[in-house]
Amino acid sequence: MLHDPNHLYIFDTTLRDGEQVPGCQLTTPEKIDIARDLERLGVDVIEAGFPVSSPGDFQSVVELSKAVDNVIICALTRANKNDIAVAAEALQYAKRPRIHTGIGASDMHIKYKFNSTREEILARAVDAVKYAKSFVEDVEFYAEDAGRADVVFLAQMVEAVIAAGATVVNIPDTNGYCLPDQYGAKIKFLKENVRNIDQAIISAHCHNDLGLATANSIAAIQNGARQIECTINGIGERAGNTSLEEVAMIMKVHNEYMGGLTNNIDSRMFTELSRKVADMMNMPVQPNKAIVGKNAFAHSSGIHQDGFLKHRENYEIIKPEDVGLLEAGIILTARSGRHALKHHLERLGHQLDKEELASCYERFLVVADAKKEIQDTDLLALVSKTNA
Amino acid sequence: MLHDPNHLYIFDTTLRDGEQVPGCQLTTPEKIDIARDLERLGVDVIEAGFPVSSPGDFQSVVELSKAVDNVIICALTRANKNDIAVAAEALQYAKRPRIHTGIGASDMHIKYKFNSTREEILARAVDAVKYAKSFVEDVEFYAEDAGRADVVFLAQMVEAVIAAGATVVNIPDTNGYCLPDQYGAKIKFLKENVRNIDQAIISAHCHNDLGLATANSIAAIQNGARQIECTINGIGERAGNTSLEEVAMIMKVHNEYMGGLTNNIDSRMFTELSRKVADMMNMPVQPNKAIVGKNAFAHSSGIHQDGFLKHRENYEIIKPEDVGLLEAGIILTARSGRHALKHHLERLGHQLDKEELASCYERFLVVADAKKEIQDTDLLALVSKTNA
Repeated sequence: MLHDPNHLYIFDTTLRDGEQVPGCQLTTPEKIDIARDLERLGVDVIEAGFPVSSPGDFQSVVELSKAVDNVIICALTRANKNDIAVAAEALQYAKRPRIHTGIGASDMHIKYKFNSTREEILARAVDAVKYAKSFVEDVEFYAEDAGRADVVFLAQMVEAVIAAGATVVNIPDTNGYCLPDQYGAKIKFLKENVRNIDQAIISAHCHNDLGLATANSIAAIQNGARQIECTINGIGERAGNTSLEEVAMIMKVHNEYMGGLTNNIDSRMFTELSRKVADMMNMPVQPNKAIVGKNAFAHSSGIHQDGFLKHRENYEIIKPEDVGLLEAGIILTARSGRHALKHHLERLGHQLDKEELASCYERFLVVADAKKEIQDTDLLALVSKTNA
Repeated sequence: MLHDPNHLYIFDTTLRDGEQVPGCQLTTPEKIDIARDLERLGVDVIEAGFPVSSPGDFQSVVELSKAVDNVIICALTRANKNDIAVAAEALQYAKRPRIHTGIGASDMHIKYKFNSTREEILARAVDAVKYAKSFVEDVEFYAEDAGRADVVFLAQMVEAVIAAGATVVNIPDTNGYCLPDQYGAKIKFLKENVRNIDQAIISAHCHNDLGLATANSIAAIQNGARQIECTINGIGERAGNTSLEEVAMIMKVHNEYMGGLTNNIDSRMFTELSRKVADMMNMPVQPNKAIVGKNAFAHSSGIHQDGFLKHRENYEIIKPEDVGLLEAGIILTARSGRHALKHHLERLGHQLDKEELASCYERFLVVADAKKEIQDTDLLALVSKTNA
């Protein structure tokens, strides 16, 4: 399978790693709805479920395979024949099926989870890839807990599974343990030391336990990864996965610095899709969430509002309309300055001279200290006193 | 002023950069309550407000100065005499006062916000520091929009303000623009090229517009910064500031790798303080927020629950009790495996043999596919059928 080395593949796992979170479960029709949106958004891969885990999950993979046309549909398995055969069956209607199989790569997982040895685990990894390959051409392998795995053993494992036919090698920081420079160095080591690495795409699957999932994904790209596994709003197990919208906007804002890589994401869908996923999956987005939080583009301090009104780029690195937001708010509070007050009064049709504005601003501060946020009605009351 | 090069100073701006957000305004007694908690938490500096901005903010700085004893109280100003004189007056009762003054450093801010030149801005910066120094010993200077500033001019500015008496130099990525390697390189350049840099502490003030505030702060520490400006829950202007709790836990988990730096933070207060700030400031924390989100320590997938029950460290890099959480949840959903079901049944006093468990698990999956989350009462109903 040929892949474009200048393309960053976006692998969305909202419907698998996101959906497995307590309270987030969706019905199959809801999953189809989101999957169609993800296809329109421009993701390259949708991880649709873990078919062996429950009858409902199996059915979802079947239905999602039928529902989308242009996106790879991926199904998760452990490294055993039953999981893989069930996944292959669930994927039977997919136009572009992918099996995602794997096993623990860290000594801690090998010893305490599998009660096994490196040699035995390596053999199971290779067998799983070969077996998956008997059903589908496109096989992704995950080296679980790669973030804490010995990098030399990890390289050996990656080389072996690529030789067995893996088209994508996923290096998960399963526990969200790594710092960006550590995770980047791990990817770099694989890129430089695995002989057949150019026959596969390196994928980054990061968790946010230390608040670093996005940064680790970016470090991975800078060191050779070409697929990012992520979710809408960064939802997922524990502190969640990498946020799709954060990675996409970083690749847009810093496109040249990040090597000019392409992707198919239409960022103007972010605001709407974020709200839909939050509502449907019962996972609210905090107001200060990057890109899609309610306040992400709201300027409130006086210093900032003044600079923003003089020249928008002083305080804005992303245009709100690029993420589908129609109007960036300049919100009035006790921290707002005269310029912001003037801006809003003019919006309401009131031109005040300097003296009137000064007098209005003084009364504004008294009201604003008492109230959390100033509404248009408050402004109109203030301005009527100024003109009186 | 002597500072310890092996200490990481924690500068909390929840009550200034956090509080200026629409809807977050606190009364002075509420601010005193939070400030006392921050003192117990072990922060080194509390930014208490921007005194010239409103009478309420002025009063808060006065009252916070009286309320705490062991923490530096810092007041924000622009680079002009009136702001600085008002801040000094507001700080009159502080046992350890700091004035935080500064001006734009990027060419964009210099041109479009100040309609000025580099030379003029440099002179205003030096004058402001000297004037602040006439009131207090401890003066922090911020070079606004340093993230987008020319690094050679930035170095010149930093050298000049240190010569004028600045004890701390704050290099804000005001617009949350930088990638971690870019921000780290900026700090490194200052550390290596500013001749008097050892006479001041370098401070990192990052914003989260691209989801990178924490990562940028960590990159700054790795390159020589020794003060981090942050807030509880990462609240603040737009997408917020660096999360205090994320930085503190990274410094704990990766202490040796991060150079063994000390800090005074008692992380066991995080859960409680996070909830208090979220409630009081009306800024909810999303369930998948790192460290303090409701789900941050909840394991839900079958693969993870199995590994977690075999050996806790398989999927846990932070002990929940270290952040003040009493019990990590293993929550039952349709993605849970037999081990998790067995664990919960045993907790409820039911020992099932292998066959009973298999039969119970099948019925469990049917119920779990239909319900979002399985409660103890559901389990007891299931087990009564197994034993029948």
